[in-house]
Amino acid sequence: MRLKLIGTGNAAGIPIYGCECLLCVKAKENVGFRRGPASALLEINEKKYLIDAGGMDIADKFSDDKLDGIFLTHFHPDHVQGLFQLRWGKGESIPVYCPPDSLGCADLYKNSGILDFNSKKKFETFRIDYLQVTPLPLIHSKVTFGYFFEFENYRIAYLTDTKGLPPKTSIFLQDKMIDLLIIDTSHSPDVVDYNHNNLTESLLIHDLLKPIRTVLTHISHDFDIWLDENKNNLPNNVVVAKDGIEVFPF
Amino acid sequence: MRLKLIGTGNAAGIPIYGCECLLCVKAKENVGFRRGPASALLEINEKKYLIDAGGMDIADKFSDDKLDGIFLTHFHPDHVQGLFQLRWGKGESIPVYCPPDSLGCADLYKNSGILDFNSKKKFETFRIDYLQVTPLPLIHSKVTFGYFFEFENYRIAYLTDTKGLPPKTSIFLQDKMIDLLIIDTSHSPDVVDYNHNNLTESLLIHDLLKPIRTVLTHISHDFDIWLDENKNNLPNNVVVAKDGIEVFPF
Repeated sequence: MRLKLIGTGNAAGIPIYGCECLLCVKAKENVGFRRGPASALLEINEKKYLIDAGGMDIADKFSDDKLDGIFLTHFHPDHVQGLFQLRWGKGESIPVYCPPDSLGCADLYKNSGILDFNSKKKFETFRIDYLQVTPLPLIHSKVTFGYFFEFENYRIAYLTDTKGLPPKTSIFLQDKMIDLLIIDTSHSPDVVDYNHNNLTESLLIHDLLKPIRTVLTHISHDFDIWLDENKNNLPNNVVVAKDGIEVFPF
Repeated sequence: MRLKLIGTGNAAGIPIYGCECLLCVKAKENVGFRRGPASALLEINEKKYLIDAGGMDIADKFSDDKLDGIFLTHFHPDHVQGLFQLRWGKGESIPVYCPPDSLGCADLYKNSGILDFNSKKKFETFRIDYLQVTPLPLIHSKVTFGYFFEFENYRIAYLTDTKGLPPKTSIFLQDKMIDLLIIDTSHSPDVVDYNHNNLTESLLIHDLLKPIRTVLTHISHDFDIWLDENKNNLPNNVVVAKDGIEVFPF
């Protein structure tokens, strides 16, 4: 099982249109500073699964290297906008596992093309070959799932977008001996947002779930600037995501 | 006044995900064969106006070179999806001229960020500096405007997406001495689509409006393959669009 982060930003991304700050200027010149919409690629035995589909170039990126499935956390545009083009692809349909959201996003359900939307139930574990997946409710402005992936002896929890965790999700995850936790950490500790964690809230979840490693993702522009000066103060087993890095195995 | 085509394809684009045809294989290797979502850039006296915003990299492309306004033909995702990121930009708001569509697309109205949506009325000409713009109703599955642009002695009609023209739009345009007509031509002559022109239908509009030059755009994958063998049979003043080309002045 391998997990690569495709995007690690929020809906605005880095660089931000019209922003002249040092970070955005650097990001225009050096792709290492860029952040696309939060998304990841899970690879197991040569099968490829996308976690969220906000990457606006996914139809192109995976055209030869086809996708075997997509896990959607929720239907906000920055998590699904790559599907608007991908759906018109050719070949086998792509299963899209998603929360039960009757609205979806724009006309994705109406004109689904090669996408086969499979709405899943919270806490009901399902299997795809040897991968075991449990959708976990999160706290966000739209019905949202995190996903708990189990393969052989490895356990990964991917939790975006969320502000804290619902008690039942915490209880479910607490005894799971998580190898890798990937958690929405949109903001620095001083920012209050009812839909996303700030760093303090993420570290509380890290302390509660005690994963071997935690990766902070869904990083906002302002948090990225804050991190530039403060990331050395993070716990040793907490790292800040970067676009394109492989985070599992570590 | 200069007009550059940014994208010239339909929602699927070229290359298509999963397609192994010769055209798509060529397009993966040579950007000259690619087609992004139909969109154009109108430049007048150093001001920049986007016509449609389906280009998924517009926030990045225009970050330094700011946009002075956007004309939306309609709210289908392939014409607005670049706004999902652009809206979270910094700096002055961007006027977005659009048809009166109460739904818009996904949450664009709810979370409009720096976008200032201005719904316009059909046939009611408005001015932006020295540019005169008339929204013209088209025939499509969602409320859709073409735009008639007049600047000094030049006249450009940009008409996507449409199947034919409503009689009042035809009457409005018929005596306008159009320099450049850009027209939705999604399909080869044998294809019937209730939302888009095929080539026969576009050439009828070309004959009716008698522009100096017509550019066919919103090209589908199958029409592109057809054109490869048949484009020499087009009238002399009818050309097939390509991404990135300047079509005015010609």
